[in-house]
Amino acid sequence: MIQKAPLNSKLLYPTSLKLDIDSLEGFSVQLVPYDVKSPIPEEHTDASILVTWTNTADNLKDAAARLRNLRWIQSLAAGPNDVLSAGFDTSKIIVTTGSGLHDHTVAEHALGLLLNAARRFYEMRDYQLQSKWPGHLGGPQPDRPAGAFTTLRDARVLVWGFGNIAKSLVPHLRGLGANVKGVARSAGVRDGVEIYAEDRLPELLPETDALVMILPGSDSTKNALNAERLRLLPNHAWIVNVGRGTSVDEDALVDALEQGQVGGAALDVFVTEPLPESSRLWKAPNVVVSPHAAGGRPQGAEALIAYNLRRFLASQQLRNVI
Amino acid sequence: MIQKAPLNSKLLYPTSLKLDIDSLEGFSVQLVPYDVKSPIPEEHTDASILVTWTNTADNLKDAAARLRNLRWIQSLAAGPNDVLSAGFDTSKIIVTTGSGLHDHTVAEHALGLLLNAARRFYEMRDYQLQSKWPGHLGGPQPDRPAGAFTTLRDARVLVWGFGNIAKSLVPHLRGLGANVKGVARSAGVRDGVEIYAEDRLPELLPETDALVMILPGSDSTKNALNAERLRLLPNHAWIVNVGRGTSVDEDALVDALEQGQVGGAALDVFVTEPLPESSRLWKAPNVVVSPHAAGGRPQGAEALIAYNLRRFLASQQLRNVI
Repeated sequence: MIQKAPLNSKLLYPTSLKLDIDSLEGFSVQLVPYDVKSPIPEEHTDASILVTWTNTADNLKDAAARLRNLRWIQSLAAGPNDVLSAGFDTSKIIVTTGSGLHDHTVAEHALGLLLNAARRFYEMRDYQLQSKWPGHLGGPQPDRPAGAFTTLRDARVLVWGFGNIAKSLVPHLRGLGANVKGVARSAGVRDGVEIYAEDRLPELLPETDALVMILPGSDSTKNALNAERLRLLPNHAWIVNVGRGTSVDEDALVDALEQGQVGGAALDVFVTEPLPESSRLWKAPNVVVSPHAAGGRPQGAEALIAYNLRRFLASQQLRNVI
Repeated sequence: MIQKAPLNSKLLYPTSLKLDIDSLEGFSVQLVPYDVKSPIPEEHTDASILVTWTNTADNLKDAAARLRNLRWIQSLAAGPNDVLSAGFDTSKIIVTTGSGLHDHTVAEHALGLLLNAARRFYEMRDYQLQSKWPGHLGGPQPDRPAGAFTTLRDARVLVWGFGNIAKSLVPHLRGLGANVKGVARSAGVRDGVEIYAEDRLPELLPETDALVMILPGSDSTKNALNAERLRLLPNHAWIVNVGRGTSVDEDALVDALEQGQVGGAALDVFVTEPLPESSRLWKAPNVVVSPHAAGGRPQGAEALIAYNLRRFLASQQLRNVI
């Protein structure tokens, strides 16, 4: 006997990514695909659940006005600023994030940026484009030369912003021989890593070969890496940012790079994206510009939706509530 | 009471790298530094042990002629072709290699090249040089698109040449979620990796997203990756070579790249190094040219020298004998 679905238990899922919808069957919920770039069709405005991924602002604004029975929005983004600014009545609607779905991909990209910096693949590329052999980067090299970040082995890596992405990244760094410390709002030991509060940055930054920033975008993280803190880094230190662009004072960073105060910066995020052609970052020395490419590929979205869907139907606490 | 050193136990160590000589004290051996680019001084031609690193051909040829008491050469290179071709009387002189001293650095570089390929940092660089945002490489992306190598997660990585470097590399690949298989002269399971003999390549190559070549340079490995085998790879497959350049038929590779038979090639070694300006590889599509930069920084040389020195003095079997 097929159980009757409760009133209006309709879930709208986006066609903007490939979801294994079979793995969401079995709940007393009607599963309906929708286009994230168009208004929701009239017959589906009775939906109680909306899953979002790369929706247009217009789509979300329209949904906020027309989905009168909506009770839960599951975003697949780690930081669903788009949903929060669309006008949904969050006194009645639960919003859950896709936190955790991007850990692996962002960690892999961060590792790639660190190796790009240490092994100077960006500089090799400049030579290759001129059919020139960058002999100074190859052949016998001094091991761990002073004043250079050339390998993760024995490198002192400071991870600022110690959430799920950091926890996914750290084993790779340690596997390659790095000494990892973390900075977060609260101190302690997490996953075997010593985490310091931000007030310890003046001691930590001078002992850092590579600073990996994974801070969320918010008023409290704006310009977290400013001129004063950049000055505390060793001249050879690299900065990798896979969090949010606003956490770095870009003008101060370019100044520090041009004056040789820091070794380089591999950035996946920027204050303004796409990075404007007028930005000083394009041509600053030892900058690697990556086009917000670290994440953007949710992993395991179905498992999160199914987990939260079961709990939603059972009126239990959801995961990743904002 | 200080023990008298045996007759002529003098060890010459190179000044071409920084060695912690204190860690070699305590043996009944006189430790003498020497310049690898000049003839050995007359008073030290009685040495019985020679440690080599980046010696000039002239230095080695001269040493072969003048070091009449020489009984053991410890090279710090993984493949000491320079020593073997210098004219030493290997019927009387033991030669040991630096195998194992380069595992970590080469594995790290290979991992960096794989991530450079998957995350297309080389292509991002081309855009950056024009102050252009490579939007197609960032933002929301399909997860594991067909016909592309975009992440190590679930990627099928085939490691051809399964020695110490492979063993050092595999845990990093697996940590990032890759499915790793190996190819070597003899089949079996090593370090938990299924290793196949080369006669299985026709089945293995079509199931490969990234082929990592770590073959030594020898007649038997020459052009191991030839036109026929390149044709067996999927069109999206990448080739990474950190072994020896001679193991790849470079002309066949450029043909395969230009015809879109393979996805790309990240190469640290070449048939001729430095890569001649006339090489087709510089401008072939999706080629990353790295200037033999993977190794070149022996790690733990002192421990190997000390281990072998103790055994040499005790007339026991040395490690890494050719």
